[in-house]
Amino acid sequence: MSTPRRFLLKLYAPDRLGLLAAITTLLAQQQGNFLDVQQYTDPLNKAFFTRLAFEFPASLEIEKLKKSIALLARKIGARWTLREQSVPLKTVLLVSKTNHCLAEVLWRWRSKEINIEIAAVISNHEVLRAEVERERIPFHFFPISKEAPRKEKAFQKMAALLRAIHPELMVMCRYMQVLPAWLCNEYECRIINIHHSLLPAFIGADPYRQAYNRGVKLIGATCHYATEELDQGPIIDQEVMRVQHFHSPEDLQRLGRDCEKLALARGIRLHADDRILVHNGRSIVFGD
Amino acid sequence: MSTPRRFLLKLYAPDRLGLLAAITTLLAQQQGNFLDVQQYTDPLNKAFFTRLAFEFPASLEIEKLKKSIALLARKIGARWTLREQSVPLKTVLLVSKTNHCLAEVLWRWRSKEINIEIAAVISNHEVLRAEVERERIPFHFFPISKEAPRKEKAFQKMAALLRAIHPELMVMCRYMQVLPAWLCNEYECRIINIHHSLLPAFIGADPYRQAYNRGVKLIGATCHYATEELDQGPIIDQEVMRVQHFHSPEDLQRLGRDCEKLALARGIRLHADDRILVHNGRSIVFGD
Amino acid sequence: MSTPRRFLLKLYAPDRLGLLAAITTLLAQQQGNFLDVQQYTDPLNKAFFTRLAFEFPASLEIEKLKKSIALLARKIGARWTLREQSVPLKTVLLVSKTNHCLAEVLWRWRSKEINIEIAAVISNHEVLRAEVERERIPFHFFPISKEAPRKEKAFQKMAALLRAIHPELMVMCRYMQVLPAWLCNEYECRIINIHHSLLPAFIGADPYRQAYNRGVKLIGATCHYATEELDQGPIIDQEVMRVQHFHSPEDLQRLGRDCEKLALARGIRLHADDRILVHNGRSIVFGD
Amino acid sequence: MSTPRRFLLKLYAPDRLGLLAAITTLLAQQQGNFLDVQQYTDPLNKAFFTRLAFEFPASLEIEKLKKSIALLARKIGARWTLREQSVPLKTVLLVSKTNHCLAEVLWRWRSKEINIEIAAVISNHEVLRAEVERERIPFHFFPISKEAPRKEKAFQKMAALLRAIHPELMVMCRYMQVLPAWLCNEYECRIINIHHSLLPAFIGADPYRQAYNRGVKLIGATCHYATEELDQGPIIDQEVMRVQHFHSPEDLQRLGRDCEKLALARGIRLHADDRILVHNGRSIVFGD
Repeated sequence: MSTPRRFLLKLYAPDRLGLLAAITTLLAQQQGNFLDVQQYTDPLNKAFFTRLAFEFPASLEIEKLKKSIALLARKIGARWTLREQSVPLKTVLLVSKTNHCLAEVLWRWRSKEINIEIAAVISNHEVLRAEVERERIPFHFFPISKEAPRKEKAFQKMAALLRAIHPELMVMCRYMQVLPAWLCNEYECRIINIHHSLLPAFIGADPYRQAYNRGVKLIGATCHYATEELDQGPIIDQEVMRVQHFHSPEDLQRLGRDCEKLALARGIRLHADDRILVHNGRSIVFGD
Repeated sequence: MSTPRRFLLKLYAPDRLGLLAAITTLLAQQQGNFLDVQQYTDPLNKAFFTRLAFEFPASLEIEKLKKSIALLARKIGARWTLREQSVPLKTVLLVSKTNHCLAEVLWRWRSKEINIEIAAVISNHEVLRAEVERERIPFHFFPISKEAPRKEKAFQKMAALLRAIHPELMVMCRYMQVLPAWLCNEYECRIINIHHSLLPAFIGADPYRQAYNRGVKLIGATCHYATEELDQGPIIDQEVMRVQHFHSPEDLQRLGRDCEKLALARGIRLHADDRILVHNGRSIVFGD
Repeated sequence: MSTPRRFLLKLYAPDRLGLLAAITTLLAQQQGNFLDVQQYTDPLNKAFFTRLAFEFPASLEIEKLKKSIALLARKIGARWTLREQSVPLKTVLLVSKTNHCLAEVLWRWRSKEINIEIAAVISNHEVLRAEVERERIPFHFFPISKEAPRKEKAFQKMAALLRAIHPELMVMCRYMQVLPAWLCNEYECRIINIHHSLLPAFIGADPYRQAYNRGVKLIGATCHYATEELDQGPIIDQEVMRVQHFHSPEDLQRLGRDCEKLALARGIRLHADDRILVHNGRSIVFGD
Repeated sequence: MSTPRRFLLKLYAPDRLGLLAAITTLLAQQQGNFLDVQQYTDPLNKAFFTRLAFEFPASLEIEKLKKSIALLARKIGARWTLREQSVPLKTVLLVSKTNHCLAEVLWRWRSKEINIEIAAVISNHEVLRAEVERERIPFHFFPISKEAPRKEKAFQKMAALLRAIHPELMVMCRYMQVLPAWLCNEYECRIINIHHSLLPAFIGADPYRQAYNRGVKLIGATCHYATEELDQGPIIDQEVMRVQHFHSPEDLQRLGRDCEKLALARGIRLHADDRILVHNGRSIVFGD
């Protein structure tokens, strides 16, 4: 007898009576055994969200399953994704010069804490090449000019490579360039970024300096999807740390790195485990 | 047209295929509209737990609903409870001399943060009478002797009063007596206690002094159900706070009070919202 | 033999060699015994801050001590305060309609967790009168008109009462009026306010609604000194709590109240224990 | 003109009048400029602790300074250490098979977040050799037999190497052997260990399994000095994380790793910055 196969179904639909019963009945009829079901109804937006983790006999015909889900989805106006859990998410990392987020993601990946496959690392600098290549991951250098037309050209070239790789996820590991709007839109809710403040506080440049000047007693980091509008994308996770008057801007930066690493690592894990749905600019996160 | 009625169904059953589908279908068939569904399958114990919050048309015949749930429950070997959300839980508080947990619970109750009705406060001391009676809550004084037979008698008298009141919940707000085993068993998973340490650390007397002596850097409090065995009941919630070398045992006590208040208040809220199931000494808490 | 008297000395001076040695020597020469010394040198602003808790023999001539401190202070260009620890800080509370911060402060005051004496409660509404008066604290009703000239008049009347009471501290317990600039300046760094967000995020009205709309995963509260510019005063303390997608704006409000209560209570305690110095809009907090 | 030199003075003495004044005056007389002074008087044990960070002109004769401190120390019965801040602490890491703590320490060291020099890594297994050697750090393999006399011999050989290296600090990065008492005593307060629970809860083997079985809602890790008695050494730092009923023992292990990494990294930093004094089994930690 062979091992059952595990799947993740993520589904959004406008709310109405009997949705959960319909979905769970459909899957149960095909011998699906639920491992974890999470459901949320947004009462303000009359929207229904669910994530179902379940296993099927190895003999399951996956195309048949997909068809029956698609049929139901059409009836109830649902958007949905189905993924086999054992397949890691094809991922590209974007980095610049600092390595703390990169090192964090590499370690979590090697330790299998996050279910991704790193297809490539792209950078606008050369400094992290060795750290990437010693893990036998391809490193691509795309310098980004400050001058608008050349910058645009550089991103076009980068996008060409991305289209060749065809990643399911991109992660900005403190990549210090603003991505063009068209690229954010092309990979909507598939580019994870980490901002080094508790958004929406301290949007923009040098948030630790801003935090120091304001004299806050808590600093943090925000993991979010990159969108056209800078630092405005749906928030996935946040991490926070206490600071005191004696912490210099450099101390805040150092402590903040721990927040960034944790929030980013959790964000990637949540995404790679298909736990996030986005609706009206807010993220529904079925936590683990 | 009248307002729909809201219900909470809590259910445990040995795991098998199709449980969630069966339950949600049953409720959907009777026009139940889910507001919140949480489900957990314990893979080690092959046990299925769910909590469903849903609303029904005002015209619903509640007895008919109960019958159909009972029928299903018998088939699948389930234990379950059904409660109408608008009815507050009849509660008795037990106190001794310190008032921080009492004041906390009274404030949360007055502010409707916890859905309880306080039927009485019982104490082994007179000191908190005024604070209770000014809220128009009956206060009962049951002094507890140190001598075993007289102590037992006192608890018997107290139990007689409890049986007359018939509370659904008892809360030990830093009640400084160990309840007899028979009383804990009579109200199994219906007596909430607060212990002033991060259990299982510092069981027994004067945990803050123990914590000081050990030089811990984190202190906390544990909200749990009272069981026959002291400080061993299923844990509902815990709260924690950082401390430093300069904190005296009295400081730990002061800071710990904030942990106790928060953990106890959350624990009562979780219980009163029917979010807790207990299995094999562990609590499944469908959080809010 | 009589009990020694305890004092708190708070001092700021431009930094230069030998400051701490000079101050500790001066106090030691008069038989001062240090209980706790905290010192901070701001390297960016070349500023020296210290807080010394010490005790003196009961026979000490306090005026003589003050004179010698004043002499040194003049030499080094210092600002300083000296307070006898046993004397509670004369305090006025400002409230509107919600009582959670009021109840919190009252409980901390009754429990002697914060070293204040509550001389009066001032409100722009009548709703909390009973809750105040049952504690035998005078309650003063000053309705505040929306119309500018009448509003100004109301604050003038209120200020007249304040000048008669002569409080050392005012605490805005969710007082829902913006104090006029002249009043903030008159009581500079002596008006503590609580804002229901992690400042500088969500300045202004209805921060929990703003937080909900932005989909943050952390909410919090900020205790700060009221200044002319709304929500811009020096931050004393902040408290934070995790939230999830299923928390409604009302849930955020409820959870946020716990943050507000904790941050405000700690802020008052820090102030009343003379642990806060303000410099360039940032607070130096010698924590406990 | 050359850069001033920075020093750290750590000092313990039985408490008496004028200690801080005497020390600060001594240093000020030699043109010492304080960057940070922390002081704590333990009122129960009448013990005085201080840590002073200061800088001296480059021309300072360090031996003269040491002599004058030694003279004062003898008079007041003090134990003390003086260190020049720019010199990293010579450190040996002990590892077994898991690499999360090792990778963490290596990253913090490369990033200069902790002021240590890693002289060697010692392991009872070969699995982490490559990860160590690619950082150009010597890796020494000392297998430890289960059989008592051979085990003792192995530790004797290991100690011989240690005496040759002469490290100022050892860090057990999840080294899965109990060090012999004589080794702990030889390096008293110079061996940092990380235990994967919130000590004193879950002493001994497999704490995450214990935590799962007890159903705790908070897990954590404890960084402490290794002592003769297992898991009983002075606590340096602790870290904590919320968990829920659905977290399996493996989940607790995974989440716990983040606690271990943070607590260990902070503990090493505190030690390497000379911020820890130990007295009566408790650690005084002058935090940063």
